[in-house]
Amino acid sequence: MVYADRIEQLRAMMRNRGWDVVIVTGSDPHGSEYPAERWKCVQWLTGFTGEAGDVVVTLDHAGLWTDTRYFIQAVQQLEGTGVELHKMRVPEQVPIPEWIRQKFSGESEVYIALDGLCVGAGFAREIKSGLNADGAACHLVSVPNLLDAIWADRPGIPQTPVFTVDPGESRIERLGRLRDWIAEKGVDYVLLSSLDDIAWTLNVRASDIEYNPLVISFLLVGPETAEWFVLKDDVEDEGTEKTFAELREDGIFLRYYEEIEIAMSEIDGSVAAADLNYHLSSLIGPSRLVETASPVQAWKAVKNPIEIGGFRDCHLQDGIAMVRFLHWLDRCMQNDRAVSEWDAAVHLGQLRAEIPGYQGDSFETISAYGPSAALPHYITPKSGAPMLEPHGLYLCDSGGQYLNGTTDITRTWALGPCTRLEMEDYTLVLRGHIDLASAVFPLGTPGCRLDALAREPLWSHQRNFGHGTGHGVGWFLGVHEGPQDVRQNLNGVGFEAGMVVSDEPGIYREGLFGVRHENLLLCVSAGSNDFGSWLRFEPLTLCPFDTAPLLVDMLTPAERDWLNDYHALVYDRLRPYLDESDADWLRGRTIPV
Amino acid sequence: MVYADRIEQLRAMMRNRGWDVVIVTGSDPHGSEYPAERWKCVQWLTGFTGEAGDVVVTLDHAGLWTDTRYFIQAVQQLEGTGVELHKMRVPEQVPIPEWIRQKFSGESEVYIALDGLCVGAGFAREIKSGLNADGAACHLVSVPNLLDAIWADRPGIPQTPVFTVDPGESRIERLGRLRDWIAEKGVDYVLLSSLDDIAWTLNVRASDIEYNPLVISFLLVGPETAEWFVLKDDVEDEGTEKTFAELREDGIFLRYYEEIEIAMSEIDGSVAAADLNYHLSSLIGPSRLVETASPVQAWKAVKNPIEIGGFRDCHLQDGIAMVRFLHWLDRCMQNDRAVSEWDAAVHLGQLRAEIPGYQGDSFETISAYGPSAALPHYITPKSGAPMLEPHGLYLCDSGGQYLNGTTDITRTWALGPCTRLEMEDYTLVLRGHIDLASAVFPLGTPGCRLDALAREPLWSHQRNFGHGTGHGVGWFLGVHEGPQDVRQNLNGVGFEAGMVVSDEPGIYREGLFGVRHENLLLCVSAGSNDFGSWLRFEPLTLCPFDTAPLLVDMLTPAERDWLNDYHALVYDRLRPYLDESDADWLRGRTIPV
Repeated sequence: MVYADRIEQLRAMMRNRGWDVVIVTGSDPHGSEYPAERWKCVQWLTGFTGEAGDVVVTLDHAGLWTDTRYFIQAVQQLEGTGVELHKMRVPEQVPIPEWIRQKFSGESEVYIALDGLCVGAGFAREIKSGLNADGAACHLVSVPNLLDAIWADRPGIPQTPVFTVDPGESRIERLGRLRDWIAEKGVDYVLLSSLDDIAWTLNVRASDIEYNPLVISFLLVGPETAEWFVLKDDVEDEGTEKTFAELREDGIFLRYYEEIEIAMSEIDGSVAAADLNYHLSSLIGPSRLVETASPVQAWKAVKNPIEIGGFRDCHLQDGIAMVRFLHWLDRCMQNDRAVSEWDAAVHLGQLRAEIPGYQGDSFETISAYGPSAALPHYITPKSGAPMLEPHGLYLCDSGGQYLNGTTDITRTWALGPCTRLEMEDYTLVLRGHIDLASAVFPLGTPGCRLDALAREPLWSHQRNFGHGTGHGVGWFLGVHEGPQDVRQNLNGVGFEAGMVVSDEPGIYREGLFGVRHENLLLCVSAGSNDFGSWLRFEPLTLCPFDTAPLLVDMLTPAERDWLNDYHALVYDRLRPYLDESDADWLRGRTIPV
Repeated sequence: MVYADRIEQLRAMMRNRGWDVVIVTGSDPHGSEYPAERWKCVQWLTGFTGEAGDVVVTLDHAGLWTDTRYFIQAVQQLEGTGVELHKMRVPEQVPIPEWIRQKFSGESEVYIALDGLCVGAGFAREIKSGLNADGAACHLVSVPNLLDAIWADRPGIPQTPVFTVDPGESRIERLGRLRDWIAEKGVDYVLLSSLDDIAWTLNVRASDIEYNPLVISFLLVGPETAEWFVLKDDVEDEGTEKTFAELREDGIFLRYYEEIEIAMSEIDGSVAAADLNYHLSSLIGPSRLVETASPVQAWKAVKNPIEIGGFRDCHLQDGIAMVRFLHWLDRCMQNDRAVSEWDAAVHLGQLRAEIPGYQGDSFETISAYGPSAALPHYITPKSGAPMLEPHGLYLCDSGGQYLNGTTDITRTWALGPCTRLEMEDYTLVLRGHIDLASAVFPLGTPGCRLDALAREPLWSHQRNFGHGTGHGVGWFLGVHEGPQDVRQNLNGVGFEAGMVVSDEPGIYREGLFGVRHENLLLCVSAGSNDFGSWLRFEPLTLCPFDTAPLLVDMLTPAERDWLNDYHALVYDRLRPYLDESDADWLRGRTIPV
């Protein structure tokens, strides 16, 4: 058994070096939501492919810590590995620091090894203080690339071609914002380690991480200097060389990626950084490190007019592809064509690939028919995917990365007759989508205070969904970005004009079906009066909702007006770019209800 | 000028003793929302009567810190006193600790005197650490009853008759809950200083504070012991003696109020306490004090069946009084009788006083006609109160304390023809009230996530109100209690069945009118299903809303149904207790819209 063998190899290494514990995380040195292959260490060691999971290995135990979303998957994937599942986000959870404390209770010394580059500084400190409080001397041994010794064919650091984008604000101006911020904070440097912060600041993109147009690197900015730790061995790409030359002209000093470690150990002055990994935090040291939130997060959340224009343009193109896709789907069902979930995803991908500026999908398409859609994070299998049938609901959640923006859209489509329950759920979720999309609210209202608007139609029927209602979206960057969101968690970040957020309520019926309706919304000013300043949303996404499974009588007059207005807008905007057949279909699909 | 003189007397004392600063707060040793006369120190020193205000006096400056609610009032009341207004809850605010830091920047030593009994420990620490960070040695001089030296006729500690209540859970049981909690926390004692915590635990009440049926005291509970610091000089009241005897029989040791200081300095063991004052915190000392939230807050928020039954009964009685009041008001307007805001408040008070078990009002009645109602915290003047006129809106916010519960109700009543704006606002606020009252939501949802439901009808017309939508209500205790609420602030305390909360959206038009609609709601279970456990609200308050100024077409069908159902309930419940004339009036006032 390959994974059991790997764990035993790791234990051999532990015995040689005198380590009691090794912690292996699913993160990369940049705290990325989706790490590159090189950093999928948990998957390599245990076979577990979920997006959230950490592993702890001792000489007599190996455990995977993951949350509710992945329990079923973890049980399946861990079978035969000897790795035990430790459940998180359940009332009886025992987090890793507490588990280690209990496990080594009474010991005088504990040696814990970890790849400090891939562990957050806060997490490491928590482990250490837990053991220390219990009276044990805890030695954290930070070994960069710890698994290299036993992972023979480990992938290298990705190095895809780097290119520039023009969001209407130059990198000189964006570095200027950082320098003003440094001055205000009274620090000597700011170190950016989050990859989207760096891409935004320098107006650079690459494809180092699947679905995320990012360049694996660090950026250190001082009052006069900017050092970009980006160079890797053997880059021979003309475009990249051109990009690098352009950055050098802008006064940015390019250094090798690995030099960040030396640079941080030798740095002279105070360094502000957000969510830095344990290894770099330790190199900088507590006397020089100023832990603080990244200002770039808030800046990049508010899109400028050029970025907003790009968002509108790419949503128009993305909407055309979606209309062609849904029209094709309708034809397939009418003609009894055999189409699997995978076939549908592939066809949609091909339509998007024809769009000028298309750079790839913004995440893995969820193409889910019937019971498949009851899993909000369903992964469509390439082989053996379920076939679509001409009845019930098909859910497709997908998006594209374009040079002028990022899209993310979910439509739930009736492939034929639906049950009463399907239609009720479909309608209630659409009511929730509309109620959030049509909200007017005071400037600075946080999304958690709006979340109930999207849930109330479901709540009133004692139905609900377990995921967030909305996330921020990057401009040709990660499809999930903060700091604003619309969730149950009490996040106090308030909405401002220029923010982009998804609106995606849903409902999931195990073994039966799932419904989700998602548009991206742009937050815009709705003016000011005696009561203050007001905001509202404008839909960026342009694609009809299926009115066939809609129980129109359940809509309020205002919800019905919103839907009819939206469908009129979709038709008006897309019509000029459609051929006769698609246009006819769209006219039929946007008739007022 | 009396206040300027008092401040000069204080300065003389400061010069004698070498103090640089004196801080005078509007609080009492128990952190009460409404202090007794003895502790209205800010009012005595400056003449300012607002409910929130602290004073800082230096040798060359005197300032009052208060928030937006009291700016106009403060400017008027401080005229000629030499006291300057420092504005809080505005973007440019400089809180007291920061102001002191700036004022004494560069000094090596600063002596700050305060009545440590009336200052929160956190606030005192903040002042100290601010100055220390700036390099000054800060000496906090805690002088209990600091103003006694210059306040000749200062009122004593109130000592009103103490009596017991029976909420269906004995004080032995409630002390048992505290003892279980102590054991769980691993501490030796818990010290309760919040007066409603103590009244709830011991099932005792008195009238030591206006509108609040509380006994000024401290309660110290250990695994086997309970010491109640309640005795004051010269209590000669038979009922009180009987109550005290009953408590002694239950094993509670009664001590003199002032002995809390000696007891805390001599205590042997760790003491858990919440929001303790600076003086007692210092006496206990950091090695023995365990600062923690009070468990009683959460316990007393969830009413038991006996308490809920009492709430229902007293709301029935209170509703009868309200119906008689509103009927009287209608008659007065029809007969052109001269009635002032004050007259109306007095009449309502007389009707409540006839209710068996009435113990007084639960707060000062807001009786506000036309422009008066545009001030959410309007105080009706006894002399020169505006006269009611047979047109426009009259707002009355009032409540009673009864042996079986506490009420709080606001009705906005049309005294005759209304303007279109009055009717629109009236209707939108009522829609918000109904939308919250009819919400169904998951168990544990915090009120801040429901708040938008009450505001959305106003928001959609770009209107809003600046106060919270709802507060918890005590059972024959304070009319405002936590920990749950329905507000814009992100308070994470979730709703449970048995909680009582007010539902009181409003709107305020300066110089014109104000609207507020308030019922108390009981949170009840709405069952469980695949999606979890559900809660909803039941109105406790029984009194019609005025349908005359209602624009019925603006209501959704569901809102209209709620209103008609509520009015049918009000009529059915109250009818048996009304005379023919009031019953006829109520029938007319509860006709379905």
